[in-house]
Amino acid sequence: MSKRDFLTTAGMTRHELDDLLDLATRIKGKRPGQVLGGKTLGMLFFQPSLRTRVSFEVGMVQLGGHCINLSSDDLYELEPNEQTIMDGRAEEHVKDAALTLSRYVDALGIRAAARTSTWEHDRQELLLRSYARHASVPVINLETVFEHPCQALADVLTMRENLVSLKSRKLTLMWCNHPEPKSLGPTHSVLQLAALMGMDVTLAHPLGFDIDHEVLARSKTAASDAGGSVRVSNDREEACKGAEVMYARSWGCTKYWDDNEREAMVKRSLQGWRVDEQLMATTNNALLMHPLPVRRNVAATDAVLDGERSRIYDQAANRAHVQKALLMQLLK
Amino acid sequence: MSKRDFLTTAGMTRHELDDLLDLATRIKGKRPGQVLGGKTLGMLFFQPSLRTRVSFEVGMVQLGGHCINLSSDDLYELEPNEQTIMDGRAEEHVKDAALTLSRYVDALGIRAAARTSTWEHDRQELLLRSYARHASVPVINLETVFEHPCQALADVLTMRENLVSLKSRKLTLMWCNHPEPKSLGPTHSVLQLAALMGMDVTLAHPLGFDIDHEVLARSKTAASDAGGSVRVSNDREEACKGAEVMYARSWGCTKYWDDNEREAMVKRSLQGWRVDEQLMATTNNALLMHPLPVRRNVAATDAVLDGERSRIYDQAANRAHVQKALLMQLLK
Amino acid sequence: MSKRDFLTTAGMTRHELDDLLDLATRIKGKRPGQVLGGKTLGMLFFQPSLRTRVSFEVGMVQLGGHCINLSSDDLYELEPNEQTIMDGRAEEHVKDAALTLSRYVDALGIRAAARTSTWEHDRQELLLRSYARHASVPVINLETVFEHPCQALADVLTMRENLVSLKSRKLTLMWCNHPEPKSLGPTHSVLQLAALMGMDVTLAHPLGFDIDHEVLARSKTAASDAGGSVRVSNDREEACKGAEVMYARSWGCTKYWDDNEREAMVKRSLQGWRVDEQLMATTNNALLMHPLPVRRNVAATDAVLDGERSRIYDQAANRAHVQKALLMQLLK
Repeated sequence: MSKRDFLTTAGMTRHELDDLLDLATRIKGKRPGQVLGGKTLGMLFFQPSLRTRVSFEVGMVQLGGHCINLSSDDLYELEPNEQTIMDGRAEEHVKDAALTLSRYVDALGIRAAARTSTWEHDRQELLLRSYARHASVPVINLETVFEHPCQALADVLTMRENLVSLKSRKLTLMWCNHPEPKSLGPTHSVLQLAALMGMDVTLAHPLGFDIDHEVLARSKTAASDAGGSVRVSNDREEACKGAEVMYARSWGCTKYWDDNEREAMVKRSLQGWRVDEQLMATTNNALLMHPLPVRRNVAATDAVLDGERSRIYDQAANRAHVQKALLMQLLK
Repeated sequence: MSKRDFLTTAGMTRHELDDLLDLATRIKGKRPGQVLGGKTLGMLFFQPSLRTRVSFEVGMVQLGGHCINLSSDDLYELEPNEQTIMDGRAEEHVKDAALTLSRYVDALGIRAAARTSTWEHDRQELLLRSYARHASVPVINLETVFEHPCQALADVLTMRENLVSLKSRKLTLMWCNHPEPKSLGPTHSVLQLAALMGMDVTLAHPLGFDIDHEVLARSKTAASDAGGSVRVSNDREEACKGAEVMYARSWGCTKYWDDNEREAMVKRSLQGWRVDEQLMATTNNALLMHPLPVRRNVAATDAVLDGERSRIYDQAANRAHVQKALLMQLLK
Repeated sequence: MSKRDFLTTAGMTRHELDDLLDLATRIKGKRPGQVLGGKTLGMLFFQPSLRTRVSFEVGMVQLGGHCINLSSDDLYELEPNEQTIMDGRAEEHVKDAALTLSRYVDALGIRAAARTSTWEHDRQELLLRSYARHASVPVINLETVFEHPCQALADVLTMRENLVSLKSRKLTLMWCNHPEPKSLGPTHSVLQLAALMGMDVTLAHPLGFDIDHEVLARSKTAASDAGGSVRVSNDREEACKGAEVMYARSWGCTKYWDDNEREAMVKRSLQGWRVDEQLMATTNNALLMHPLPVRRNVAATDAVLDGERSRIYDQAANRAHVQKALLMQLLK
């Protein structure tokens, strides 16, 4: 299959990343016109979306194209497993949906970010991978529990705009508290790109909230290849000292992935894991980043989210720009 | 902030209203072309919509732009209150949603017309006002329980098309029965514009169904300034005598705003409050108007709704025209 | 009323059908440009949709137009019966919705394919017919329990592409098993067109699963007029021998239309009614067709659905092409 998908930041080369960010920067200044005239992107959302939905739709419109939005409410249940006898609830196989949609649209975006089982199961991104395998058009990952590569592109563009060169800059990816279990998508995807850029990354989280071991291992290797580093710290205060970028985001406990109550119990003692002015004062005048939506005064205080070093809305705005660049690369 | 919102008909000047209606009239005849090419309007619906949704979407398409429709089903719960510790159900603050959307779209429309609490609470339109305060792009009121200004623009255009000059023309805004409690939005918004135009308005409703006292007071003043008048009558038959426009619409009882059962009980004896041919015969050959959706044979009979003096579909059609004019003023 | 609707394949002439298929073939090769620029199609879905929704939306975009998608979730309940006192749950009459939408959009598509009552009731397509009667713009049937004419157009185009001339070609329309009761729409609509083309049709189904008697009678007449034939067989194996096209699709039992449990009980002994390689081997190297969604390994096996004689994705793709031709005829 020669079609290009965009499912992960793991396989990207530095050259590919630079190309994409450079294109995003160029089209940010002036609109590139109707370069995707008549082209359509189908988006399937199996969970709610605000930024992803609107930034892709606006992006396609500005390029002369069109988005078709299918939420799970518009659809019946779909079967992702092969060779099943479909006498249950699923009305159609993912294969047939993917191949049908491939005859109509020019690319497919899939958000499939539900917790459904154990981490070992969910980390395989079966629904996304099933669409990617069967579709004959490019498939874009609009967030799974494992990756959120479009968010990470926007994040790296935002860092580049503020710090110019990212090599050896100190980034702290900090876990923060949240009343609900969250996906590991943004954290994994941005870690992999920060490593590729040669940043010095500190991954800060409480004991028991390790990220995926494979993502961590390959990020360490990638960072080392690029002249940077990735280390883990379970000491919130130590981890933030001297940071030039503070990237806050909650994620779920992979050990108790199928046990929300146990995760909630563990998190009761972790309310100190939030970003406030006191913590920010220990950094090297760090930028404050968060991929949104954010639980105000739980993950981070109003003061830092609304402070002058906050870049949370620039991150959101850059979603549209990087995605336009991505769509131009995939569809033009 | 220099951005212009369109939240209410209360603050409009006669000059602004005439400008907008004149523009609507001009573009009604011939299409103005792609004047909003590449522009997007984001619409958030927290209640169902037919006319508003479709008329805005068609309007944007005809002007070369695009609507992005977000219903509450597409979204998680949003927090409207400031400085909250967001550890409850709301996944994102209105502030963050508004500022994010402001980076993507060129204007935002909000329908937030739910009964949530007492009248004193709901009349403040907290959700709409929160979006307007935080968004950096123009915000359009797509209906609250307090105002429905786009409907009122279409209504006044419809009256102007039929009566030419509205000064001193007799308009009866008549409450009519309905199995469910309804918002006061259309009534308030059209009353304020009719007052601005110097019409002689009779507000007819049963005892206990007073409209908001501030809206009434400022409409009386505005009418008086414009050479017209606003009076209230609790006598349905007296109120309709000699009317040149009969505008029927139900609205809720503000006194029992948080007690639907009590309102329903009161309304059991009010089934006579509907418009029929007998009542229309006492008017001065009045036009029959209703903002739709209408409960046929409850609010008004088939005979009058389908009669030759009915303008209900012209009102609906004019929604698209006035809104196109509004969008051109706000976005061009 | 001079407006043209597209509600059924029953009334089509051979000339009309050829015209439409010829146009579809012409535009399939090269895009006809912005011939529907500024035009809008409103689609009301009272049941979920994938193919219909996306193929129409893509079709309109490729012709320069726009689709507005309204699902039943976006709407309140609508009243289809005339002269009702609307004091129940329905918030608006179909008449008012249809006439309002007619002032906004250039055509309306309606999917209203729910089982609601007995077959004698549901076969009347009351909701679709109510929209068609009241709307002043063309109405397109997007599937009822009685007809699915857009699917049938795509099916006939697919047969014509493969067999060139359809006259006297052997088509077997075969009932197959399904865990849920299904509509008769695709079967009725394609049978009527196959008859019009003069094909030799065998309608194969278990005892008790007769299609609508009027559809059968008029198809027999039409086939006979065109030099073809329609016969019914309750012997699955006999019916498939020598077939040049095997068209599989489940449908509901009209006798037990309002009794799902009884239908389910009857179907327990009908699991042999599926298409597999053994059955296909008895045909005259038949094409395998199915309108999708298909229950894999219940209605037909993976082997035949994924086999080289399968045309299921071509059928789906042709939906977009025939519908573009239809929209051009109705709206240009």
